[in-house]
Amino acid sequence: MNAEIIAVGSELLLGQITNTNARFLSNHLAELGINVYYHTVVGDNPDRLEDAIKIAENRADLILFTGGLGPTKDDLTKEAIARHLNTSLETNEEALDSIVAFFERAGRPMTENNKKQAWVLKDSDVLVNHNGMAPGMMYKKDERVYILLPGPPKEMEPMFQFEAKPKLASLLNKADVILSHVLRFYGIGEAELEDRLHHILEKQTNPTIAPLAADGEVTLRITAKTNTTEEAWQLINGTKNEILDVVGDYLYGYDNDSLASKVVELLKQQGKTISAAESLTAGLFQSELASVAGASAVLSGGVITYNEEMKVHQLGLSAELLAEYGVVSEQTALAMAEAVRDKFKTDISVSLTGAAGPDAHGDQPAGTVWIGIATEGSSKSYRLQLSGMRNTNRLRAVKLALYYVIRTLTEENARKI
Amino acid sequence: MNAEIIAVGSELLLGQITNTNARFLSNHLAELGINVYYHTVVGDNPDRLEDAIKIAENRADLILFTGGLGPTKDDLTKEAIARHLNTSLETNEEALDSIVAFFERAGRPMTENNKKQAWVLKDSDVLVNHNGMAPGMMYKKDERVYILLPGPPKEMEPMFQFEAKPKLASLLNKADVILSHVLRFYGIGEAELEDRLHHILEKQTNPTIAPLAADGEVTLRITAKTNTTEEAWQLINGTKNEILDVVGDYLYGYDNDSLASKVVELLKQQGKTISAAESLTAGLFQSELASVAGASAVLSGGVITYNEEMKVHQLGLSAELLAEYGVVSEQTALAMAEAVRDKFKTDISVSLTGAAGPDAHGDQPAGTVWIGIATEGSSKSYRLQLSGMRNTNRLRAVKLALYYVIRTLTEENARKI
Repeated sequence: MNAEIIAVGSELLLGQITNTNARFLSNHLAELGINVYYHTVVGDNPDRLEDAIKIAENRADLILFTGGLGPTKDDLTKEAIARHLNTSLETNEEALDSIVAFFERAGRPMTENNKKQAWVLKDSDVLVNHNGMAPGMMYKKDERVYILLPGPPKEMEPMFQFEAKPKLASLLNKADVILSHVLRFYGIGEAELEDRLHHILEKQTNPTIAPLAADGEVTLRITAKTNTTEEAWQLINGTKNEILDVVGDYLYGYDNDSLASKVVELLKQQGKTISAAESLTAGLFQSELASVAGASAVLSGGVITYNEEMKVHQLGLSAELLAEYGVVSEQTALAMAEAVRDKFKTDISVSLTGAAGPDAHGDQPAGTVWIGIATEGSSKSYRLQLSGMRNTNRLRAVKLALYYVIRTLTEENARKI
Repeated sequence: MNAEIIAVGSELLLGQITNTNARFLSNHLAELGINVYYHTVVGDNPDRLEDAIKIAENRADLILFTGGLGPTKDDLTKEAIARHLNTSLETNEEALDSIVAFFERAGRPMTENNKKQAWVLKDSDVLVNHNGMAPGMMYKKDERVYILLPGPPKEMEPMFQFEAKPKLASLLNKADVILSHVLRFYGIGEAELEDRLHHILEKQTNPTIAPLAADGEVTLRITAKTNTTEEAWQLINGTKNEILDVVGDYLYGYDNDSLASKVVELLKQQGKTISAAESLTAGLFQSELASVAGASAVLSGGVITYNEEMKVHQLGLSAELLAEYGVVSEQTALAMAEAVRDKFKTDISVSLTGAAGPDAHGDQPAGTVWIGIATEGSSKSYRLQLSGMRNTNRLRAVKLALYYVIRTLTEENARKI
């Protein structure tokens, strides 16, 4: 089964929002073993939408639409598809009831335009919207499947996952097993990784190996296609071992791991707690850790000292040290890490201080960052010189701090990046 | 001039990354008054890429490509375009020199596959890459313009903005002036806003008005097309005043404002400082403020108390209060806000405590959030019941806290959302 995803919405073509729906759907379709060959974005224009449908019908047998199911005048996906497929729209009573109930719960009057949201394609399979008003649809015609989903991700994602995906899975011939396993690396560039793995990448057929770099991370996705789950894992593990023999030192995790989830996992395993003193990143390091469910078992908290005075008052750093070395310095980073560890009584602590940009901080150019890590009886510091924009630098500093914590917890020396 | 953006990369079709480049380019093309009618994503497959180019040539006279200019085997955009346009690739000596220099600076050996990055289309206008190795290209054939850009946003964005955009601007007939102005609202739903503005939206022709909802915010983009900048602003301001007469109470900012930038701006104007005590959001509120350049003038810092013990030890909350009312309560939120304001000696302070999910916190269901705001002589609290996933709830709580700070600073009563 080959699929195409058509996102409908002029706001996408004007650059007001990003098409995150295509990524979400592609990911889930890959899991089902469905090939996605194209994504298309088209505006709120019925003629151009119909042109896009015709092109998609020439190259896909599953077409997924997102967006254009809402109450307003420019929501016209259903209407355009009904016209193209030569069918009609009818009110779905259950959807209408739930829209009426929604407004009653909210204590707001229901405006007339909301009724349009309950219209569905005649003879379609209705997909219930548990997080919004417009229902989705699955419609079959001439050996082709059309799936209509709402645009807002918080409505679309659960609707696809729990309503559409099971229906799709049961349509597929499940003879083939397709399994993917992702290896996650930090501290090595994409070209270097690929160069060192040249001999393995050269001969790949099944499993296939797809490298990808993003935000300083490199991943390798190993995908095997075979008859049984056992055989697929055998193929994947063989290739994985060959890869790790060469670049295993840079591996930090697998599949849905993130640097933050790995830190939380290692701390839990070791029964340790963590705190942080943040200047540059103003809470982003701790917020990344807290984005992992269950982080409260290991993250005690920390202090954000965004100005110099607070480093003295809240962390007890000496004004002399700050005057002598400056806020952006190795000495300040180490003193911040040690002070917060002491104050929050944790096993490990992290500090981040630097000049995010666009301006320099005194004689320290924009992009200069010091990271401190304190543990029982020892402290380490790392200097980075980043070259991105303000918020790229802040995020990169957080990722590097997480990476150094992983290295510290796994008792290997962090390598210089 | 009508444009199409073609992003090349199997990682996009596998759902490993999001096509943020299309959004960035669309935004800039809209500014130039270039209509973008389609976005296409295609994988690292030369035949399917060529099919996509043929389709784009039927509906666009400017085609922008992103991705596939790198050193690895699956980077094949240049090769496929050269074949399709019946031209050849040649080494660009300046690009090659800068690639060699890059590896020398990094102190790493240059692998052979990196030389391919210096190949460019014969007779193209080379776009210099100041943030990476692969140069971009602008190529003209048969009244059609082809622009090739690298995939990584940190290379693509500055290359488009500073190298390609000026060249494009000079190609355009600048007779038309197209101006957009965005109004930003919070605290009102999209359908309600549109319903209340029905009479204005109904008659729109020039300027046009495009509503958009995202993350609890609603924006209206007013776009005027005319002969002079003055005329365009006159049209925009007329419509803007009509809109604000009806829903002006919900307006919080314009254009590139964000809730965070508005808070920083208001605090600067009023010469005030802010601090925060965060539990639920673990630093995300302060990090959002710090994402605004110049935030250090108003953000003093704060405390993250991610476990109950730290609320007592670091903020001095009474253990009795916590035992009686619980961590997720109005009393705790107010005490946290007052304590951090006192400790950091700021004019205003914010606290966030709640159950992010997926689990409940004691008898408080997931999604329950208390926000406290303390100012000289008065404290307020707000209870929210959110229904999203863990990190959606955390982000929504931060946005609501920012919104309440804006309302507090503009001395209007925050309305119930």
